[in-house]
This record gives sequence, C-alpha cells and structure tokens, in this order.
Amino acid sequence: MKAMEEKILSDGKILPGQILKVGGFLNQQTDIKFMVEAAKEVARLYEGTKITKVLTIEASGISFSTLVAEQLGVDLVVIKKHASANISGDVYTAEIYSYTHKNSYVATVSKDYINEGDKILFCDDFLACGNAIKGVQKILTTAGAELVGCAIAIEKGFQHGGDTLRSEGIRVESLAIVESMTDDAIVFRK
Amino acid sequence: MKAMEEKILSDGKILPGQILKVGGFLNQQTDIKFMVEAAKEVARLYEGTKITKVLTIEASGISFSTLVAEQLGVDLVVIKKHASANISGDVYTAEIYSYTHKNSYVATVSKDYINEGDKILFCDDFLACGNAIKGVQKILTTAGAELVGCAIAIEKGFQHGGDTLRSEGIRVESLAIVESMTDDAIVFRK
Repeated sequence: MKAMEEKILSDGKILPGQILKVGGFLNQQTDIKFMVEAAKEVARLYEGTKITKVLTIEASGISFSTLVAEQLGVDLVVIKKHASANISGDVYTAEIYSYTHKNSYVATVSKDYINEGDKILFCDDFLACGNAIKGVQKILTTAGAELVGCAIAIEKGFQHGGDTLRSEGIRVESLAIVESMTDDAIVFRK
Repeated sequence: MKAMEEKILSDGKILPGQILKVGGFLNQQTDIKFMVEAAKEVARLYEGTKITKVLTIEASGISFSTLVAEQLGVDLVVIKKHASANISGDVYTAEIYSYTHKNSYVATVSKDYINEGDKILFCDDFLACGNAIKGVQKILTTAGAELVGCAIAIEKGFQHGGDTLRSEGIRVESLAIVESMTDDAIVFRK
C-alpha cells in the first residue's frame, strides 16, 4: 500500500536498536482517517475469504484491528498478555517471546471467544520475528479454528518473521514491508 | 442508552467481588456493530463541543475509544500503563491506582500527542472509582489541554467515582450506570 509507505516516510522516526517509531499515527496516537483507509485495504485484500473474527494481541494493534473488524463486518477478539481478574473460566494460552520488550508473556484468551470452525484474520500493527503469530496459531489449532491469514500494518522485513510464516504456507499481507533501516533512511521491499 | 442496559442484561455476567463480566461484547471480544451504535450515541451527546482528540488508557477501552474517535472525526491517543521502549523523549506521567487489579501504575504518554489547547474527550469501557480520570486530568492540566468530558460505556454507580467527578464539575456521560448488583440481578440508575 503506497500510502502506508508514504506515511512512514513523512511521519516515522528511527530510534536506536532498529525501533521504528510510528506512534504518531499507528498506535499511541492513531490517525483514524488514515487508518480507516488502511483497514479498507485489508478488507479488499481478504475479500471473499469469509472471515468470522478479527484477532489481535493487546495492546498496540487494537485500534487498527478494531477498524479492520468494522470494515469486514465481524467482531474483534483481543488476546490478553497476562491473566486478569476479568478473565474467568477456561482459557487458551500460549507463551510468546516479545522482541520489543525482551521478555516472554503468556497470551491468554477465554475459550468463549474462539470457536471451532471460526475463520480468523490475525491483525497487528507490527510484524518482526513472527513469534506472536506462532503463538496465535497454536491457540487456534487447539480451538479447532482456522487462521485465514494475517494483516499487518508494518512488517520489518529484515527480521524475517514474515518470510518464515509465508514459507510455512501462512498468508501474510503487510501494508508496508521495511527491507532495511539505517539511522536516516528507510528502504521498502518492492 | 437503553440498548446498553439491555445488552448488559442479555450478555453480562456477575462474578464474585462485584466484577461485571461484559468481555463478550465490550472489550476482550468487541461486538463491533453494537459498539458502533454506542459510539454514535457518544458523538450525539458531545455534538458541538469541538473535541480535538479522544483519549483513553490502555487496554480494555481502546476498541470502544477507536470507534468514538471515528464517529467524532478526530484522532485517538492511548496512554500507556508502563514506560516502553517505544516511548521516547519527554512524557507526561501520573500515578493511578487500579481498583480491578489492586495495584498502582504510572500512566505515561508522549508530550508529542497532547498539545496546549487540545479539547479532550476521555473515553473508557468502565468507570468505577474514577482514579484513572483524576490521573488524566492531572496530565491534561500540565499539558494545558482541556478535559471536555468523559464518555463511559458502563459506570459502576455503587463505587461513586462518577458522582465525585460530577460534583467537581466534570462532565461524565455513561451509556449505562449500574446502581447495584447482587449475585443474580443488576439494577440500573434511572
């Protein structure tokens, strides 16, 4: 999506440690009008796939995922990063290592919200190493649900998580793929 | 909003400790079509107030807040509960005690996202003791921004946070106010 690449170039900043700071439009502050257009592009890419639910892991991808779910006309399910007083009864869990935060967490979601036969679109703001998606896939397999594909706002191509997932047959649609970053330049994958 | 009361009665469950479980439509799973209608009601209530941004604290109110921001045609800002590698530079902070989780956290938001003169609508899924809103108010005062009001999906009237805020002159619009809960019944405020 050309508009996403242009937005990253106009609004993004590169921080030390190959952190791409796009908090001004993607998550900490969400440019709703722009992200609605991004969500429409996701809905176009997945047209005809009969998705029943959009799934994300809290928290930074929730606003984007909400807009995608709205465009697809389905409900959103948010996997929590920690057990909570608000999650009761049976849950699905998967341990996931976070590259950004350099630690592991136990992704947790109530069994009430993922049903056998659900056709799931996993949606997130970033894809780096792909660990979150592997955890999600484990949960969906246990639940008897299908991962139709992934919709990512920005993929960090140089961390190769997306490449690995695609080589395993998982559909990954990223609105922009950053091939490389230096301290003052961003190169996108063609 | 009559529809919110009806939704709570049809889909909600009461857990021990006066926890109202509405995760099936409000947050962990968001019923997007229903919550769009709730967001439209918020936009109607705040019509003419010239809000410049919707603000929430991660994570469970983000999907509702996203839909409210979309209806109002403004951007969403999400205050984080913890410092993060993705927040750089100057930040506003406020210590907030969470009734649900029985601990305190340091609400943190980049100074880039709240500007002097901003007219802010604070939006969240729940209002209990009102501690989060007091922390937000502190941040907004420091930033020179104005809290136009609050839009809450479900207010726990029996914890009186909303009453206190209203007595201090803060506009609080809640789509449903739970006056009391027993193990098997919910009474709404008239």
